Amino acid sequence: MPTSLVRETDVDVLIIGAGPAGLMCANALAKAGVDVRIIDERPSKVAAGQADGIQPRTIEVFQSYGLADRLLREGNQMHVAAFYNPGLDGGIELTDRVPDVTAPTARYPFEVTLHQGAIENIFLDSMKAMGVEVSRPVVPTHLDLDTAKLGDPNEYAVRVVLKHLESPENGTSTEVVRAKFVVGTDGAHSWVRKSLNIAMEGSQTDYVWGVGLSSVSHPMRPLLKAMPVDMVPQTDFPDIRHKTAIHSENGSCMIIPREGDMVRLYIQLEGKDAVDATSGRIDKKRMGPHQLLQVASKSMRPYVFKTPDEFDWWTIYIIGQRVASRFSVDERVFIAGDACHTHSPKAGQGMNASMNDSHNLAWKLVYVLRGWAGLSLLKTYEFERRKYAQDLIDFDVKFSGLFSGKPRTEINLDGVSHQEFIQAFQTFGGFTSGIGIHYGESAIVRYDNQSCAKNVVVGQRMPPQVLIRAADGRPVDLQDMLPSNTLFKLFVFTGDTAAATLNELASDVEVIMHKFATRVELCCILSPSKRPDFGFMDLPLVLRPHWSRVLSDEKDLRETQGGDAYATYGIDPHAGAIVCVRPDGYVGMVAPLEEADAVASYFESFMA
Amino acid sequence: MPTSLVRETDVDVLIIGAGPAGLMCANALAKAGVDVRIIDERPSKVAAGQADGIQPRTIEVFQSYGLADRLLREGNQMHVAAFYNPGLDGGIELTDRVPDVTAPTARYPFEVTLHQGAIENIFLDSMKAMGVEVSRPVVPTHLDLDTAKLGDPNEYAVRVVLKHLESPENGTSTEVVRAKFVVGTDGAHSWVRKSLNIAMEGSQTDYVWGVGLSSVSHPMRPLLKAMPVDMVPQTDFPDIRHKTAIHSENGSCMIIPREGDMVRLYIQLEGKDAVDATSGRIDKKRMGPHQLLQVASKSMRPYVFKTPDEFDWWTIYIIGQRVASRFSVDERVFIAGDACHTHSPKAGQGMNASMNDSHNLAWKLVYVLRGWAGLSLLKTYEFERRKYAQDLIDFDVKFSGLFSGKPRTEINLDGVSHQEFIQAFQTFGGFTSGIGIHYGESAIVRYDNQSCAKNVVVGQRMPPQVLIRAADGRPVDLQDMLPSNTLFKLFVFTGDTAAATLNELASDVEVIMHKFATRVELCCILSPSKRPDFGFMDLPLVLRPHWSRVLSDEKDLRETQGGDAYATYGIDPHAGAIVCVRPDGYVGMVAPLEEADAVASYFESFMA
Repeated sequence: MPTSLVRETDVDVLIIGAGPAGLMCANALAKAGVDVRIIDERPSKVAAGQADGIQPRTIEVFQSYGLADRLLREGNQMHVAAFYNPGLDGGIELTDRVPDVTAPTARYPFEVTLHQGAIENIFLDSMKAMGVEVSRPVVPTHLDLDTAKLGDPNEYAVRVVLKHLESPENGTSTEVVRAKFVVGTDGAHSWVRKSLNIAMEGSQTDYVWGVGLSSVSHPMRPLLKAMPVDMVPQTDFPDIRHKTAIHSENGSCMIIPREGDMVRLYIQLEGKDAVDATSGRIDKKRMGPHQLLQVASKSMRPYVFKTPDEFDWWTIYIIGQRVASRFSVDERVFIAGDACHTHSPKAGQGMNASMNDSHNLAWKLVYVLRGWAGLSLLKTYEFERRKYAQDLIDFDVKFSGLFSGKPRTEINLDGVSHQEFIQAFQTFGGFTSGIGIHYGESAIVRYDNQSCAKNVVVGQRMPPQVLIRAADGRPVDLQDMLPSNTLFKLFVFTGDTAAATLNELASDVEVIMHKFATRVELCCILSPSKRPDFGFMDLPLVLRPHWSRVLSDEKDLRETQGGDAYATYGIDPHAGAIVCVRPDGYVGMVAPLEEADAVASYFESFMA
Repeated sequence: MPTSLVRETDVDVLIIGAGPAGLMCANALAKAGVDVRIIDERPSKVAAGQADGIQPRTIEVFQSYGLADRLLREGNQMHVAAFYNPGLDGGIELTDRVPDVTAPTARYPFEVTLHQGAIENIFLDSMKAMGVEVSRPVVPTHLDLDTAKLGDPNEYAVRVVLKHLESPENGTSTEVVRAKFVVGTDGAHSWVRKSLNIAMEGSQTDYVWGVGLSSVSHPMRPLLKAMPVDMVPQTDFPDIRHKTAIHSENGSCMIIPREGDMVRLYIQLEGKDAVDATSGRIDKKRMGPHQLLQVASKSMRPYVFKTPDEFDWWTIYIIGQRVASRFSVDERVFIAGDACHTHSPKAGQGMNASMNDSHNLAWKLVYVLRGWAGLSLLKTYEFERRKYAQDLIDFDVKFSGLFSGKPRTEINLDGVSHQEFIQAFQTFGGFTSGIGIHYGESAIVRYDNQSCAKNVVVGQRMPPQVLIRAADGRPVDLQDMLPSNTLFKLFVFTGDTAAATLNELASDVEVIMHKFATRVELCCILSPSKRPDFGFMDLPLVLRPHWSRVLSDEKDLRETQGGDAYATYGIDPHAGAIVCVRPDGYVGMVAPLEEADAVASYFESFMA
């Protein structure tokens, strides 16, 4: 019977593609208890190479999922950025060493480098502990939406036909999956994107785009942007373990130290070195790692850089800077990661942007699946992440342009000066660290009342700050109160509020908590002037739902950390404020203590 | 055939008893690649209760084995110690809150509380990953030494007969194990100790000892020291999450907050409440948790303390303060942990002392088994740890005396004043934190030259200090360079040494490293005045065996940490010094840079 030959399954969320974006999504959904399935076309996972830089903000996100310990244990840390420029004798010389991360509020003030396989393993192990594994090798062959079912989030509105490439079960390799939602995280050549007919916007061919980027000093000449080689170097170059940008008369290169003794070099080549003149396409046969390293070796003179015999990984590619025209279809099928945006790797954005797409999307899917919010909440995914992807490209064009430009010398007065470069490096610090990601105003981001908590920027992630837990004197970071557990976090900075006002506030908060209890966690932050006369047990009961949920803005008894939270956050210690943080750690709204009902109306505007 | 019925096995080290001491030992040996076996008489591991406090030094030791992350993730932290005394209205009132850990150099300035089962799981999981599991339920029934084999550490000189209490293999439950070494970590009633006829010294009966301890205010009246009850409390007592000592007119109690919402109360009872008058022994039937908590409830007035319906664990016991007369027989069989010393639990020493016994012993066994040192090295185990156990009891008698004493009031002028109590608490800080453990002079602890590194106290553990790694600018703690990997660590503080002297030093160090390369790791610490003119690449090659092994005494580029290492360690930044740290993290010797040969003679004195 033909019907018995095709396996049919239902799932709440089907994720297509198990790279960093897909795995972040699967892990987040599994952690939230969602019925999730993830497939990948590759028979086994990536071992090494590919993307590798984790930004400060992404480390914070890992921390919110309880995954930062391992990332920090296994990864290399880049604390210093060094800059070399042509010296007087034809070789390069050190111009400057600066902190690699300049964003002042970064909790982890460094970048982590770790090969993609190791990062994927962190997710895979976390998912495995929750009973979710990647089905592979499996490819989707057909996807359609049932328009009649689109209105009800409980309906399995998406139908995807899968083909199992190995060990078919029940005598067939074909499976039909009915899903409530599908997330396509299947890379730059995304099958999901293509099957939805979503166009990529931006430069239409890599070649043309390459020309555009190289315009600073090489107008109209194609420039290959990324030629990474991973290796264990033998060199007397003193900055080989720093992130180092080298501008030399013999070309440019960038050093990215990696885990262990490994180093990745990004080597700048003239386009003609590796491009087939006839087709205009990359010809990997024209340029191998030895040739690449000879170029690097030349640019590092007078330092000795020996070509190793073995390479961990290398490639040559051209990256187009493009963004998909849409990130979702009918709030039922989404694309995330490289499937919807591609970037130059210079600023180390790619994997970070991809994982943060999923981080943004996952809790919204959970809210809709649980019936806590309507489908319209999902519109904010494209709104927030597409804007970010575009900002990223604007940034990248500027940054890459500076990097590709020849250094300014006596002969080349049109070149990029070190001052220009370093200024750009630091100006863009908020961007390259991921700390500065800023979401626009929407139902879940409300800019009004910003003045009552000046430095808690609505639409940005909640900054870290050490506070002292009132009950046990333990220093805790406020970000530790922001686990990715799908709940909104309501921080009540009580200020110097008099007892009567505190009781009024407590009644207001009680109403909110009563209505949204399952979706909101409450935490109180006592003001520095209120303690120690005012103990946490003096708070109305509703404001201290558990002993661990009252923090105090003071130094610990040993005077080594804590204090200054109200000042850091720009909250008047007399007036106090309410800060509402979204499940993904981004500030959704702030309000004065007297306007607690603004919180209720905020929640009501998008929660069911 | 009778011979085939008895299983015979050989093993390098047999550990009898899988409590904290035994597991620390097994894990350390497994990590060193030793052929180790561990047995326990219990059919399954301890689930909750029993010992639970981890001191700052023990956390450092866990860190050296890579096990601190999990300990810190799962455990509760005690940062604050609070003291309550009788107030004017008959109830108690807060007298003081002070840092719980007063040892100034503690890297982790708090205690961790976590139930013993969870601590054991940390070891069990670590061991499992190395292929070592506990055989249980198995009991030893006979132990003898072959005197003819004692001289050669490669001989299986100890014979132990084991009885498997469940699922016997090969039709028999008896097994004969031939071991090179045996470690008895089988608790206060140690079978190993008894079978070796090792006497316990100190008070001979619990009862008599109890009298002795209570002498401060209740001469000759038996006093039960430890009546722990674990529970989730319902109370308005504001210091319920602090380590709190309560002296009241209605009795004394101590609060030890635990993981989750659990709290352990140690309640002081008069001996008659639970002791059978005829036998003088504890009668657990006379006193249950509800009665215990009624006592606690009374002593906490005017605060409300409701008796919960359920208790996680509780017990009543009297602890004798005793030390075994010997810790080993012929350097072939050792006892560690409660098998060789028992203590009052008030100061939270027991489990810490036990694990640190094994930590002290394990690397020495490894050195002998590898042929790196002679059997005599093993004599230092008893020398160092027995002295410590005795010091611990001297401390405990004083500390417990103070705790058991009634508070000084207008009526009871002989009582203990809060000033006396707090002074004792802080004076003994080095002891209660484990930081102050100080080993006496021996082949592996050489006091001479102390003056060249005044604050690196020979015989104590190497203090932590943040330094900046020269090659990559990463802040690292010097203690992170002290993993428990069985190697000695040679820290060369190069000071302002001129190039010529540096080259001489390099030759001296080369000789040492050539001879002891497999057993010694080298690390250089550049002086603050030498950097930045002097780069780490300017060091002679032998002083920078790997880029990660040169640290610099400076602040990081963001000026948030680092600096002051030479000052902290009391090393003249012009003169420099050599510090040699044992595999267990204790300082073995220090020397001026010009006397590098003292290091060679130190190693030669005990290494083969």
